[in-house]
Amino acid sequence: MPPAPVRDESRHSAKWQARRDAIVDTSARLFARRGYHATGITELCEANELGRGALYHYIGSKEELLAAIHDQVMDEVMACAERVAQTGGSPSAQLAQHGEELLDVIHRYPDHVWVFLHEFPALTGERAAQFRERRRAYEERIEAVLRAGVASGEFRHLDAWLTARAWLGMHNYTYLWLHPGGRLSARDVASPFAQIFLRGIGQATDGQGAE
Amino acid sequence: MPPAPVRDESRHSAKWQARRDAIVDTSARLFARRGYHATGITELCEANELGRGALYHYIGSKEELLAAIHDQVMDEVMACAERVAQTGGSPSAQLAQHGEELLDVIHRYPDHVWVFLHEFPALTGERAAQFRERRRAYEERIEAVLRAGVASGEFRHLDAWLTARAWLGMHNYTYLWLHPGGRLSARDVASPFAQIFLRGIGQATDGQGAE
Repeated sequence: MPPAPVRDESRHSAKWQARRDAIVDTSARLFARRGYHATGITELCEANELGRGALYHYIGSKEELLAAIHDQVMDEVMACAERVAQTGGSPSAQLAQHGEELLDVIHRYPDHVWVFLHEFPALTGERAAQFRERRRAYEERIEAVLRAGVASGEFRHLDAWLTARAWLGMHNYTYLWLHPGGRLSARDVASPFAQIFLRGIGQATDGQGAE
Repeated sequence: MPPAPVRDESRHSAKWQARRDAIVDTSARLFARRGYHATGITELCEANELGRGALYHYIGSKEELLAAIHDQVMDEVMACAERVAQTGGSPSAQLAQHGEELLDVIHRYPDHVWVFLHEFPALTGERAAQFRERRRAYEERIEAVLRAGVASGEFRHLDAWLTARAWLGMHNYTYLWLHPGGRLSARDVASPFAQIFLRGIGQATDGQGAE
């Protein structure tokens, strides 16, 4: 049997895993409020009601904790992308579903997403590389839908990379004001956003001709 | 004569002001690379080739330096908004010009904008309030253009607040990849972004009817 990789958690009990998940959630809240660098191990111990040794037993290191927060966001976001791929449908329908799913993650994980979008430069080495790779994989899903829509004639001719960045910015940036218990649900936002974007990239039908 | 307010810099020479501006720029670069909290006064002194006393003479405090970076972004952005207002034209033309101007600021001040978007929670008290107020004033300019377009019949019925957030997200989020010397200029991005957004909020002309 090969040696277990460093971040393999399968050797731990369900109870251990549940406690670790709770620590990741609590720490995400703390990092979101105070910033990753400004939050010390002492504060993490206090917030999680654990001694230093016990905390390290669960998280390994502060940077590993940060990576776990990033992984949780990416796990959710890639699960969304998988659901969209399995649902299938037209590129327009897929892009609309991508928006709804992404906003739902942002709405459900405000602290994790805040940390994700603010603190990713604090990841180093292998963890930074892995994060960039996963983020890029998600972006490529969006670009692929855009290209499929151009190929099918549903969308006008467009730069898939640049258009994906417009879409990602429009949706990701909601983390600043889309919160649980807020005035708007993820769906309240997803629908008008999809309308703007799909009309924006749709074939011109007004006789002015596509670009 | 009333006492000079704390942040009145008019009593300083042009030379002092130029040196202070250079310190703000250098420090923005440092904060963008390493984070505000992780950057100590020692590193600020080294980067600016100043002793501790001389540094404080120019900046007052580390938080005042952060506020100065925010102010520089807001000064630029509000100057843009003023130019758009003075140019006038249709709401569509104004929104397109807003986009071009905003992307130009993001392109010219990558470090300042990075700090602005990542570190604003580190501002406290009066400085935080002032920053929120200035940011809100800019957002209101965008909302006003959207409302004017609805009133003139140029844009379809829309929620100006929510639509402004879509627009701001799409444009602000370019700070992650729009850099001096990069593949794309601000104008390369502004034009396709305006096309997506203006088609997206324009009156439907395809017989499916406006929302």
